[in-house]
Amino acid sequence: MGSLDTNPAAYAAFAADVEGFQPLNADDVRSYLHKAVDFVYDYYKSVESLPVLPGVEPGYLLRLLQSAPPSSSAPFDIAMKELREAVVPGMTHWASPNFFAFFPATNSAAAIAGELIASAMNTVGFTWQAAPAATELEVLALDWLAQLLRLPPGFMNRTVAGGRGTGGGVILGTTSEAMLVTLVAARDAALRRSGSNGVAGITRLTVYAADQTHSTFFKACRLAGFDPANIRSIPTGAETDYGLDPAKLLELMQADADAGLVPTYVCATVGTTSSNAVDPVGAVADVAARFNAWVHVDAAYAGSACICPEFRHHLDGVERVDSISMSPHKWLMTCLDCTCLYVRDTHRLTGSLETNPEYLKNHASDSGEVTDLKDMQVGVGRRFRGLKLWMVMRTYGAGKLQEHIRSDVAMAKTFEDLVRSDDRFEVVVPRNFALVCFRIRPRKSGTTTIAGGEAEAEKANRELMERLNKTGKAYVAHTVVGGRFVLRFAVGSSLQEERHVRSAWELIKKTTAEIVAVAGEDK
Amino acid sequence: MGSLDTNPAAYAAFAADVEGFQPLNADDVRSYLHKAVDFVYDYYKSVESLPVLPGVEPGYLLRLLQSAPPSSSAPFDIAMKELREAVVPGMTHWASPNFFAFFPATNSAAAIAGELIASAMNTVGFTWQAAPAATELEVLALDWLAQLLRLPPGFMNRTVAGGRGTGGGVILGTTSEAMLVTLVAARDAALRRSGSNGVAGITRLTVYAADQTHSTFFKACRLAGFDPANIRSIPTGAETDYGLDPAKLLELMQADADAGLVPTYVCATVGTTSSNAVDPVGAVADVAARFNAWVHVDAAYAGSACICPEFRHHLDGVERVDSISMSPHKWLMTCLDCTCLYVRDTHRLTGSLETNPEYLKNHASDSGEVTDLKDMQVGVGRRFRGLKLWMVMRTYGAGKLQEHIRSDVAMAKTFEDLVRSDDRFEVVVPRNFALVCFRIRPRKSGTTTIAGGEAEAEKANRELMERLNKTGKAYVAHTVVGGRFVLRFAVGSSLQEERHVRSAWELIKKTTAEIVAVAGEDK
Repeated sequence: MGSLDTNPAAYAAFAADVEGFQPLNADDVRSYLHKAVDFVYDYYKSVESLPVLPGVEPGYLLRLLQSAPPSSSAPFDIAMKELREAVVPGMTHWASPNFFAFFPATNSAAAIAGELIASAMNTVGFTWQAAPAATELEVLALDWLAQLLRLPPGFMNRTVAGGRGTGGGVILGTTSEAMLVTLVAARDAALRRSGSNGVAGITRLTVYAADQTHSTFFKACRLAGFDPANIRSIPTGAETDYGLDPAKLLELMQADADAGLVPTYVCATVGTTSSNAVDPVGAVADVAARFNAWVHVDAAYAGSACICPEFRHHLDGVERVDSISMSPHKWLMTCLDCTCLYVRDTHRLTGSLETNPEYLKNHASDSGEVTDLKDMQVGVGRRFRGLKLWMVMRTYGAGKLQEHIRSDVAMAKTFEDLVRSDDRFEVVVPRNFALVCFRIRPRKSGTTTIAGGEAEAEKANRELMERLNKTGKAYVAHTVVGGRFVLRFAVGSSLQEERHVRSAWELIKKTTAEIVAVAGEDK
Repeated sequence: MGSLDTNPAAYAAFAADVEGFQPLNADDVRSYLHKAVDFVYDYYKSVESLPVLPGVEPGYLLRLLQSAPPSSSAPFDIAMKELREAVVPGMTHWASPNFFAFFPATNSAAAIAGELIASAMNTVGFTWQAAPAATELEVLALDWLAQLLRLPPGFMNRTVAGGRGTGGGVILGTTSEAMLVTLVAARDAALRRSGSNGVAGITRLTVYAADQTHSTFFKACRLAGFDPANIRSIPTGAETDYGLDPAKLLELMQADADAGLVPTYVCATVGTTSSNAVDPVGAVADVAARFNAWVHVDAAYAGSACICPEFRHHLDGVERVDSISMSPHKWLMTCLDCTCLYVRDTHRLTGSLETNPEYLKNHASDSGEVTDLKDMQVGVGRRFRGLKLWMVMRTYGAGKLQEHIRSDVAMAKTFEDLVRSDDRFEVVVPRNFALVCFRIRPRKSGTTTIAGGEAEAEKANRELMERLNKTGKAYVAHTVVGGRFVLRFAVGSSLQEERHVRSAWELIKKTTAEIVAVAGEDK
């Protein structure tokens, strides 16, 4: 039994009140939801003052809440009380305007409302027939977003002219799933064209990505059965700002092909997680085309920025790739989870992912006129995924969405300028979007870093990060780029304003001064 | 541009009203959510009167809504208006009390409220540190559910005595993902123990399931790279009520082992989708143990019933399997998506699924004292998945949850009795839970079905289904069991009461009379 008090009298009152059990009684639903809305309102009003990263120890919650499930019902207020008193104090507040870690999980009123309605309608749209409007709204939302991104018509379910496209999209949970399903489609195609007997040829298939590619890509390759020895992580360096070098890619793919292997799949990233590096999409596509390999573009974070004309050039060449995914849950104000996958030829995907059990057969599916979204994902069941994304675009429009991106980028630029204005710090890689990678500089003698300077700098930067995060007034994460330990300052949490960025900078300067003082350096 | 009217004056008013763009302004959030709550209230009050299956044609929504994304913002009311006028009329209403198709997507006020709060907090709990309370509440909710299911302590994160368990759980989106990640763990273990060089040995690995197993299992096997030729679908028949025959399983596994293949994984289902057949878990585990093969139990639907002592025997033997998954989004009043996966040895899962990129490294993960849930799933990002499930158990308690299961089963029993009381119909397989598989009987001469009787019966039952579904007053799906086309009548939609079941039965009788009359039969 945990330590939070409960009130036995309240239980008794509730039990006496219930006649039969109606879990979706409309009055109860409204009452519970109004309590939840009040909580959300108070949360957004107060989250700025909560420690971003909580100071709790592993197992803290298990000591506060009862370890066994209750046998009797309780008023909803009890769950809400435990949420406020036990759960909230142990949350890392991604919604805090003082959150600068990882990438922000951006959100909006329209998205949350859309998700609420989807949860209440609770449709399971595996086939068109099982939820026609949910399927069609998802397709429409994907086509709208494709237009905002100026994707070539080949990726759209319906072309702008109104005809049926050859390509199409689907909303998945995460980028990892987008990678997995396209890897499987590419794998099966490569097995077929290499004349493999069943999967025997899988040992000859090779996949490629820059070493800055998200670790989940390499995991997805393993999930799909690729041989770990055939998963190529291509080194990058400062000379390409940590983007993939197409010449290196060509060299590797050619060597593999010459050795009798089958180059199967290349993943190019637009906006890496570590430092927002951008792989050159068009050049990568040109190299891969020589080997008939599938090219996937992972634009999970930075794809959202490409709705602004000034950032769209990062997708140049996308008309020559096979698939692209981006996650509105990262930077397009759509709460988790929402990853949009577009493929140029849906048949290549459904060829590997289609199922057709008797109990799902229906006239609409048989007609071939509809999209059954289960055939473009890992699972069968799926929520009403399109609603919140459609509501975001319907309510804010291209204008506000672009304003939101530009405002975040402007705040990041402000932070970058502040860092550059202080000699103690350096910006480690060029800022492409709203992420600034910076660090306390290693000490130098002339233009040369002093002996031990790098190790000392890593120690100082680690300490800076840990001290910052312990204050509860900011949360920043780190990465290692080119062997250097650097801090990642990601701007864009949806409640963030320039004053939060400036406050964080003041805190960084103050904390750095403390560290340098303790280390016996000059101030 | 679609055909729904919009009001340009409203746009202008909105645009003038906005100063800067604050997508999470607390007042806007509250206002949008109150509109959404009003919609949900009205929806639940009226859904009974809406056609369960809409009479829309493919592409209908694309003709109603504008095909291009709006460039300007619009009041949220516009999205709500289009939702009501264009989207709702094209929905298949899973929340309707007249929905008897597939399995019901059960739901509750507590679950929806929990999901709303999760959407608003919008945490991304890939590691413990990224969301300590979200991780710990998920672990707690899983342990609570494990206790309700009386799973052996080996599957729990914390034993009832309070110590750290060797097993553990994770909440995933769907059963398919649970199958996939356990298949990958089993695959990697089998490759290691068979001394495979990389994945070369994959062509020798074999997997097993009854032919009644969900099609998504066979798809998950293909996703994980198993050779299609090595995926064994074991025939079942009426003699085992379409459950897996352990003798047949043993025969097949032994033959494969004798042929030098490596039996790797067996999937046993408790409550198949087609007809609610139950594979004998303990006997399957005993057979698989001879070959050191992984056993997974898919209890997606019927697992929920096992919180009642009278149904728990269906899980007998579960202490000898490697993993089990069940989906509270099916029958435990937790809106989509929520699939609980338990494994007996978490290290076997994380060994295949772990990633450790620099930017996610932190002291808590390094300590080994915490669970990083990203290492038990396909992707990295994840919602605050435990909240709604915890809220359901916290608010309703074991008592109400059991009452809900028993009420559904009782209603199904009522329907079964009605079917049995009418000579024109037959119940095709024994009813185990709240699904009744029935059909219009083929005509007989004495005890023998007349020539052409089966084909005639299929035609009549198809017509019955199509006529029923066209009325909009009920939605039933079909399956094929033992070569016979049968109707699936699944009880349990959360707004359902006995009167809906009785109305559906009246409609079935009336429609059957019409079909028989048209066919020139006696009434």
